[in-house]
Amino acid sequence: MAERTYTVAIAGATGVVGTTVRQILEERAFPVGELRLLASERSRGAQLAFRGQDLTVETLGDDSFAGVDLAFFAAGGAASREYAPRAVAAGATVIDKSSVFRQDPAVPLVVPEVNADALEDHAGLIATPNCSTIQMVVALKPIYDAVGIRRVVVSTYQSVSGAGKRAVDALEHQAAQVVEGRPVEPEHFPYQIAFNLLPHIDSFLPSGYTREEQKMVDETQKIFADPALAVAATCVRVPVYGAHSEAVSVETKEKLTAAQARELLRRASGVEVVDDPGTLAYPTPLAAEGRDPVYVGRIREDETVANGLVMWVVADNLRKGAALNAVQIAEELARRGALGRRQRMLY
Amino acid sequence: MAERTYTVAIAGATGVVGTTVRQILEERAFPVGELRLLASERSRGAQLAFRGQDLTVETLGDDSFAGVDLAFFAAGGAASREYAPRAVAAGATVIDKSSVFRQDPAVPLVVPEVNADALEDHAGLIATPNCSTIQMVVALKPIYDAVGIRRVVVSTYQSVSGAGKRAVDALEHQAAQVVEGRPVEPEHFPYQIAFNLLPHIDSFLPSGYTREEQKMVDETQKIFADPALAVAATCVRVPVYGAHSEAVSVETKEKLTAAQARELLRRASGVEVVDDPGTLAYPTPLAAEGRDPVYVGRIREDETVANGLVMWVVADNLRKGAALNAVQIAEELARRGALGRRQRMLY
Repeated sequence: MAERTYTVAIAGATGVVGTTVRQILEERAFPVGELRLLASERSRGAQLAFRGQDLTVETLGDDSFAGVDLAFFAAGGAASREYAPRAVAAGATVIDKSSVFRQDPAVPLVVPEVNADALEDHAGLIATPNCSTIQMVVALKPIYDAVGIRRVVVSTYQSVSGAGKRAVDALEHQAAQVVEGRPVEPEHFPYQIAFNLLPHIDSFLPSGYTREEQKMVDETQKIFADPALAVAATCVRVPVYGAHSEAVSVETKEKLTAAQARELLRRASGVEVVDDPGTLAYPTPLAAEGRDPVYVGRIREDETVANGLVMWVVADNLRKGAALNAVQIAEELARRGALGRRQRMLY
Repeated sequence: MAERTYTVAIAGATGVVGTTVRQILEERAFPVGELRLLASERSRGAQLAFRGQDLTVETLGDDSFAGVDLAFFAAGGAASREYAPRAVAAGATVIDKSSVFRQDPAVPLVVPEVNADALEDHAGLIATPNCSTIQMVVALKPIYDAVGIRRVVVSTYQSVSGAGKRAVDALEHQAAQVVEGRPVEPEHFPYQIAFNLLPHIDSFLPSGYTREEQKMVDETQKIFADPALAVAATCVRVPVYGAHSEAVSVETKEKLTAAQARELLRRASGVEVVDDPGTLAYPTPLAAEGRDPVYVGRIREDETVANGLVMWVVADNLRKGAALNAVQIAEELARRGALGRRQRMLY
């Protein structure tokens, strides 16, 4: 019997996440029957390769989702808000990268290694978390399951690709301007990002936290279904291209030694431990770029609290932080026989 | 009556810190009578400007300190270990940038805004703390005095100039190699630093922490004379040239609101508050480079603990983190009439 195939759409196909979704669908041999590449009018007619064929980018519109089984949305919040409900209404299962629906109680927010079972309750739309949240919860999961977690203090070191293609271009241009001794134009970001840091990702809330920082709180609690799990975040943009890094301090409910944590993480799904100070083995964002695992290193005990652990967590924010997690959600849905055109419409 | 002047030596005069000491002595019109520039044999004969005159670099040796009132040491641990005691024996007051003597109970470890009174007990040698410690304790001081501090969790974002001139050259070379599409040679650092991060500064200890991280613990406790002050640090090298940044989470003994903390910091010596999310005002390392203050921003409450505050602390690591702090120590000694050739010898 031939394997079931799916008609798949990518909304935002020309962006950095959409591009990576297309690559990962091919790499992982996801059973795509037909692939529809959707983007804004500006990109219409562009040719993008998939499994050796050139596909033509179409304009994202009301009629884009007829016959679509599975739609990945990575075209920004406004496009998700407008078109994701229409795709669901047309019968597609939508996996949405935007933050628009993440806190909707009817929408599962899923990292397959952590809460795949939340997919059982979906009503056509599944949200994939923010990049900075995904890699952290993958690393927290085995610890959470073993001894419980009370509180997490996290400082992020986030790459420019998390801010999209123009942010990547901005770092490239500015780095060249600095190297060549030319004046630097602070395009895209409010200040120069080359050889600089900005403690500012997404907009500021009245609390003084940024939306990016608040996402790490709200999303972590939703993914673990644990509103008592305390998270305090500082999110910082750094002049790195393709992977986010995080210094994560964890207060567990029961004691876990660094050796025990290392062993749990070694066996954990989606994690690769790189942690041997003797050989200077620790994760770096450059080494993580283009790779699938969440890399964890610098695992050590924090004796300034009763049950403290510190670790350094690095992952490619376009892969596990975005496109790979979305494709893994699709694979999990397919495995559960829950992917394909549906009759029921929520929106 | 003419102002008293001092015969001053700089050991390590050709390095990044020694160069900055020379500039700051001139900028601040420190009462230098004679300036002796000392370095390794390799640099002998080099000419360096001071107050419009070219001075010739001499080789650091046993006879370098005869007649010297004040010696700044910024030539690395080995040179401090060998020559700082000889300078003290020759009657000079030594201000040492290395980590060699910092934990010696007979040696005050001083940040003038925080513990200037520790200078009263010196016996010829005063240590200036590690760059990452200095800027943190300056920002913690007004909070500590107002409500007490139980615990600090800090993640650093440290510039390459903290690792010396060759580290700066390495980032410049590597950035040019990346921009020009050439292969990158990971000189100086164990891995590429351009467009990358290394969670590794100084060597690893058996605890899994680095010496840099342990310094932040030990030095903070010594400077506040408070061995119960808990500090957990993660130190990370970032591709930035001239200032260190730190995400600092503080648990105070009594409640302090963000507004109260901001007001205390505004009035604090050595601090400049840059904290207005509405106008995107926050400290960045590029803006701090070449400047004297410790910049503090992103001040907000952390409601995941009883009395929590978070802030973002940025300072030029060659100035306040090294040379400026050393010169400020000398100024404080001069103000106290405690600078000049001494008879008593400890070493």
